[in-house]
Amino acid sequence: MAADLSLDALIDLALAEDLGAAGDITTDALVPPGAQGRAELWAKERMVLSGLGAFAHTFRRVDPTCEVQLALADGARTGAKQLVGTVTGPLRSLLIAERPALNIVQRTSGIATATAAALKTLKKGSRLKVLDTRKTSPGMRALAKAAVRHGGGTNHRFGLFDGVLIKDNHIAAVGGDVAEALRRAKAHAPRLVKIEIEVTSLEQLEVVLAEGADVVLLDNFNDRQVAQAMKRIAGKLEVEVSGRVTPERLPKLDALGVDFVSMGALTHSARSVDLSLELSLA
Amino acid sequence: MAADLSLDALIDLALAEDLGAAGDITTDALVPPGAQGRAELWAKERMVLSGLGAFAHTFRRVDPTCEVQLALADGARTGAKQLVGTVTGPLRSLLIAERPALNIVQRTSGIATATAAALKTLKKGSRLKVLDTRKTSPGMRALAKAAVRHGGGTNHRFGLFDGVLIKDNHIAAVGGDVAEALRRAKAHAPRLVKIEIEVTSLEQLEVVLAEGADVVLLDNFNDRQVAQAMKRIAGKLEVEVSGRVTPERLPKLDALGVDFVSMGALTHSARSVDLSLELSLA
Amino acid sequence: MAADLSLDALIDLALAEDLGAAGDITTDALVPPGAQGRAELWAKERMVLSGLGAFAHTFRRVDPTCEVQLALADGARTGAKQLVGTVTGPLRSLLIAERPALNIVQRTSGIATATAAALKTLKKGSRLKVLDTRKTSPGMRALAKAAVRHGGGTNHRFGLFDGVLIKDNHIAAVGGDVAEALRRAKAHAPRLVKIEIEVTSLEQLEVVLAEGADVVLLDNFNDRQVAQAMKRIAGKLEVEVSGRVTPERLPKLDALGVDFVSMGALTHSARSVDLSLELSLA
Amino acid sequence: MAADLSLDALIDLALAEDLGAAGDITTDALVPPGAQGRAELWAKERMVLSGLGAFAHTFRRVDPTCEVQLALADGARTGAKQLVGTVTGPLRSLLIAERPALNIVQRTSGIATATAAALKTLKKGSRLKVLDTRKTSPGMRALAKAAVRHGGGTNHRFGLFDGVLIKDNHIAAVGGDVAEALRRAKAHAPRLVKIEIEVTSLEQLEVVLAEGADVVLLDNFNDRQVAQAMKRIAGKLEVEVSGRVTPERLPKLDALGVDFVSMGALTHSARSVDLSLELSLA
Amino acid sequence: MAADLSLDALIDLALAEDLGAAGDITTDALVPPGAQGRAELWAKERMVLSGLGAFAHTFRRVDPTCEVQLALADGARTGAKQLVGTVTGPLRSLLIAERPALNIVQRTSGIATATAAALKTLKKGSRLKVLDTRKTSPGMRALAKAAVRHGGGTNHRFGLFDGVLIKDNHIAAVGGDVAEALRRAKAHAPRLVKIEIEVTSLEQLEVVLAEGADVVLLDNFNDRQVAQAMKRIAGKLEVEVSGRVTPERLPKLDALGVDFVSMGALTHSARSVDLSLELSLA
Amino acid sequence: MAADLSLDALIDLALAEDLGAAGDITTDALVPPGAQGRAELWAKERMVLSGLGAFAHTFRRVDPTCEVQLALADGARTGAKQLVGTVTGPLRSLLIAERPALNIVQRTSGIATATAAALKTLKKGSRLKVLDTRKTSPGMRALAKAAVRHGGGTNHRFGLFDGVLIKDNHIAAVGGDVAEALRRAKAHAPRLVKIEIEVTSLEQLEVVLAEGADVVLLDNFNDRQVAQAMKRIAGKLEVEVSGRVTPERLPKLDALGVDFVSMGALTHSARSVDLSLELSLA
Repeated sequence: MAADLSLDALIDLALAEDLGAAGDITTDALVPPGAQGRAELWAKERMVLSGLGAFAHTFRRVDPTCEVQLALADGARTGAKQLVGTVTGPLRSLLIAERPALNIVQRTSGIATATAAALKTLKKGSRLKVLDTRKTSPGMRALAKAAVRHGGGTNHRFGLFDGVLIKDNHIAAVGGDVAEALRRAKAHAPRLVKIEIEVTSLEQLEVVLAEGADVVLLDNFNDRQVAQAMKRIAGKLEVEVSGRVTPERLPKLDALGVDFVSMGALTHSARSVDLSLELSLA
Repeated sequence: MAADLSLDALIDLALAEDLGAAGDITTDALVPPGAQGRAELWAKERMVLSGLGAFAHTFRRVDPTCEVQLALADGARTGAKQLVGTVTGPLRSLLIAERPALNIVQRTSGIATATAAALKTLKKGSRLKVLDTRKTSPGMRALAKAAVRHGGGTNHRFGLFDGVLIKDNHIAAVGGDVAEALRRAKAHAPRLVKIEIEVTSLEQLEVVLAEGADVVLLDNFNDRQVAQAMKRIAGKLEVEVSGRVTPERLPKLDALGVDFVSMGALTHSARSVDLSLELSLA
Repeated sequence: MAADLSLDALIDLALAEDLGAAGDITTDALVPPGAQGRAELWAKERMVLSGLGAFAHTFRRVDPTCEVQLALADGARTGAKQLVGTVTGPLRSLLIAERPALNIVQRTSGIATATAAALKTLKKGSRLKVLDTRKTSPGMRALAKAAVRHGGGTNHRFGLFDGVLIKDNHIAAVGGDVAEALRRAKAHAPRLVKIEIEVTSLEQLEVVLAEGADVVLLDNFNDRQVAQAMKRIAGKLEVEVSGRVTPERLPKLDALGVDFVSMGALTHSARSVDLSLELSLA
Repeated sequence: MAADLSLDALIDLALAEDLGAAGDITTDALVPPGAQGRAELWAKERMVLSGLGAFAHTFRRVDPTCEVQLALADGARTGAKQLVGTVTGPLRSLLIAERPALNIVQRTSGIATATAAALKTLKKGSRLKVLDTRKTSPGMRALAKAAVRHGGGTNHRFGLFDGVLIKDNHIAAVGGDVAEALRRAKAHAPRLVKIEIEVTSLEQLEVVLAEGADVVLLDNFNDRQVAQAMKRIAGKLEVEVSGRVTPERLPKLDALGVDFVSMGALTHSARSVDLSLELSLA
Repeated sequence: MAADLSLDALIDLALAEDLGAAGDITTDALVPPGAQGRAELWAKERMVLSGLGAFAHTFRRVDPTCEVQLALADGARTGAKQLVGTVTGPLRSLLIAERPALNIVQRTSGIATATAAALKTLKKGSRLKVLDTRKTSPGMRALAKAAVRHGGGTNHRFGLFDGVLIKDNHIAAVGGDVAEALRRAKAHAPRLVKIEIEVTSLEQLEVVLAEGADVVLLDNFNDRQVAQAMKRIAGKLEVEVSGRVTPERLPKLDALGVDFVSMGALTHSARSVDLSLELSLA
Repeated sequence: MAADLSLDALIDLALAEDLGAAGDITTDALVPPGAQGRAELWAKERMVLSGLGAFAHTFRRVDPTCEVQLALADGARTGAKQLVGTVTGPLRSLLIAERPALNIVQRTSGIATATAAALKTLKKGSRLKVLDTRKTSPGMRALAKAAVRHGGGTNHRFGLFDGVLIKDNHIAAVGGDVAEALRRAKAHAPRLVKIEIEVTSLEQLEVVLAEGADVVLLDNFNDRQVAQAMKRIAGKLEVEVSGRVTPERLPKLDALGVDFVSMGALTHSARSVDLSLELSLA
């Protein structure tokens, strides 16, 4: 969809906090209104790119006359110093959009890069899928989820509306009764949605196996516990593992036959990568 | 100010992407509308807290009947496992607000914690000030800046409107002429605002010293270059250093008499810290 | 006016509830981003068209590159199977806009068709005017009022601001005193606005005749009561009749010399007509 | 969730189009600012109630000091003349909120009533489920879906984001290849979402049975074709029937073992039911 | 109506431009968060008050805990130094709301005061009514119109929607044909709305008298021309005079039997009156 | 910046209050949808122009197909009757945008003209700068500040965020202690912002001189007091004078060596100048 009202809203928040009503006083003081410019976006380290559409959209939101040409696309892996694209337009607009645009693309490319790094620990052909979570910055959900895909990862559900995921706090909310939680979910879940449930012990797993579900999430299980669980599950449910899993542990979980590992750090703790804008007079 | 329209807008974005119009289908299926609950917010590692107001506001935005009681305040340093506060209210509302509220406070506390860690490298009584930058997630500027203060840091300008900061791209935009850039800034800057200028060489520094400014920013200077610059400046200007400065380098810059060091990583690459919500039936 | 901020707001609500932030997962899974398509809008039953502008605008709101060409215009009467127009554009955008666009045009054309059907009971040259009411779906007022015009009907006032209409509840609010209600209206009504008053008995009508007004509304009068009222009014006031009037009763009211009949069912209970979109690859 | 930003947006649209900036000129002319009133909401025909929360919220949105007390709840079946609730507050606010509040609750209760009427054709204990569709007025999706539940119906997916439903136009968009459509859906559908596919012939059904899916939708099949299809499906897939199904046909489809019937008319063509507000001075 | 979404929007614009996202840096630096204060609103010259509701609402919009107590009401005439009301609440909030609140009430009271001054030229019992126009600051229409009433004036139509007023540019738009303009207006004007037409010559007036209208507006007629026109009109139409009328001319126009005089200067050129806020610690 | 979200918001408020959802009923009744027109903007008195961008933007906001050509630019001084520019586009759109567009440009040009008039009292080469204040209509801050510049004036800070200005109420808020106020400001003011403080007596001035600041504001000092103050200040601080200063007093203050005089009347009490639109058929 060409029009993206959520992205507009996010960019507008960024512009509002950076410009207020008074605007860019440095640019206003230095740069004459008519001056045209050209800005190059450079990757200054190896990375997986993501968020280039939002980068471009930020410039056009500041000034519809800005034109963005991309030399690389989302998902591309860059060299240590590589030209990613160019923006041309009024110099004032380029200077105003620079930081908000970089703030997005540095973070989304950071997420893609962190995801790719995690996946690198797995050997080719591995069938383990690495999932993201809902642990994303406010307003960045769609961008962060796309970044995980660009880095080779797989998306978990998008939000609270496209999948039932019964977590510890939901079980607490029904008085700790796992079976009852599953019964309610099956009775009331929307028609085209699957049911996943988090368990924190082998005892809870037994209840899930007895009651039935689509996916089970083993939370904070160590390798030995995962192995025991996989034996009990024996292919009857899809299996997700979560709980501060490091990339180094992925091969072991893959070997144990786990289907999915979800890693909150992909989105909540990826560092921003080094992308910079180099400006010249047109 | 009790009302904060920007914070409302940010939280609304987070709720919109997490709930859509269809809402929390897991909670709707499991939890009866009238059930009341209680949630405890726990720090699960040592950290400096920040963003507790936004955390609390998220619950009240989801449901004005939620009540939040904080045991600790922004800026407090927690133990490795410490109760931070409790929320009481309708169980459904607690479950819906949990993730958006945590996504904010985990990140803002992460920024405060990273700032405090950087400052720990300086000895007590040091007069070097560690600054943030405008490298913040969209919509999070005010929260991120507050987090830097809670961690002991100092804020740089808030946005493009409350300080003239002439950077490399502005100098490029006036054809590379540092003196002309300063002259335009002095002629056109708003009345109550100071002028800072970034230099990337000792030659540029000489022009700044000749032309005059309030603050000079030495960008990507190594320690030796900083030392040379400090000698030339000799107290005539305030001095900021920037450019991928690591916390380990701060004591050296302090010793050289630098006034400010700005560190983008405080806000753009701080990891989220471990805060979690534990729910029980009321 | 080319720009219509209210229509934008209505379409945005429709898109938000249908797409959320996660978007059209079926289309995303099946259709490649670059694919172009063509969609034909077909009337599948005889109808009076209305709302084609909003239909077209929905596609352009989803994607400004969609192009809409209409073979028929608002107010046109279709055959039982007739091509109304075509839309070309990115396949993904066509699939996303399809349902929200149809939801509007099926309903507005349903209103136009119901209005035309009601008017068909009157013989040609009849001077009775059939009016709509304020009983419209939220956000659909302007579209519903236009549909009534396209079906041959006449609009009552648009909202609460462009005509004084004193109804039973207003009279109750001034203690049941019809004369006092009229006096207050005449003293305080805006300058360029007429005064209409609803009466539910011949006694109230006498008060209105004594006090004066521009229009009288006979609410829930049967034919005999209308006849008596018309005799008393004798052309001194314009006359509107309301109260669950069926189309079949219109000729009788016309014969009695009534000026206007208002029918809430035109807008609140018209069924949606059968318009469908047929897609093909471009 | 106590706060509902989408409902606020819908009500604000309704108030904006009814009041504009000039407000209710009749009420302003007649009713003194300080006067207090009381309004009773009466069902004037037998109906199933729905939308009472939105009704109440409209009054509070107009004026937070209005108080609403409900004698009946959503889902209740009323007699031919029954008190549903009362609103007390400033007379001016009651008069302003009356029509927008009624416009919503008359329509939502109409949907609930139509749903209940359709279900009445089925004998007790029938396992056939009657579904709604996405054919709802703009902004009314959540209210319309709730109304279907209150009438005893079952919700289909909420929007485009919580279930894959491959319809004729999607199949056209992949060149008419049903198998390819299913393969793409299975490869790219979100993790916790099921796949339903619409077929218009027994030949397409064979492809679906060969390729696999979660649910099949038989579109515009007559009873004989449905019988043939059920024999071929033999419990391997859930089955939905759609296509202008009338309530009278439901028992036959139930007897054939169909799981779901979806009926667009429940939401797009239900008539508004007769609920009215009776005002008195407090 | 207690809730006023347009006023909220206006105040939010004022707060956004004054505070941005960075807030009140003076207050933040000087005043501790918990401090409570009290502010007195003083009229510092003789004036007619108006806009006190918006003044109070600005404080509550900044901070719902602020409490406003008014000693005088809209429409009151103050002495040369008189207490108008007091606000209590957090000191920070009082300081933030001060200027936006004063900017509104100084201007609205200025309009009321200018209106009262104009009306003072007329003797008691005069039946000439002084009207406002649509010449108001963006977003201030309702406040400005109320101020005119508080000053003793009468409102013209509110906007483009509540009265037909055919002006010179409309006549130009129909090719200069006054009769045709009136015919179109009568054929297409909404049902409950009157028709006024502006004339700039006695010749045009003759056409209006022949064709019929509800009100005629004599634009830029001098006293002699007005007298001629009144003779020709002879009570058949209501008469409005406009065109840079000064207050001094009103008695003459009154004597000539004119019904209305509209004066743009009341709203577009009234000076702000002197109201100030005096703060103390609580 | 080509896109200006604040200006859009202001214009949208103006259009909403003037059009509501019902639109321009006069234009709708008289002017056929397809008709094209041409409108000339004429200055009808000598003035300094300002706000032409907002004037043009209003037409484009109403209808993106309107085209505006300006013969003069902001800051130009017009003759007593001079063509400023022309707008071409659909007649309906021209008629709708006319009044909201004029309401803005008449006021902003009024501010520019008043500023130029004030400055005319100073002899050429005078170094006294005339400043505006924050006393602007809601939503008009940026437009009003630009108008002051176009009239030859100088802007004070834009809002509460781009300069510390300690006024009487702030001093009251810290218990009347001028020195303490300055100490807090210096400790907590943002890095790149200067500190100005208002004094109302020579005693307070002494404290400021002892404690230090960037600028001192002498409020309500008469000429003799200003002279005494200037002697004491002796160039150590920049000096602003405020307090109902009339243009006639400016030469005296200039002669005394004052740097700045701020005049609230420039923005809060400038009258609207006479600009009008003359329409013709295209």
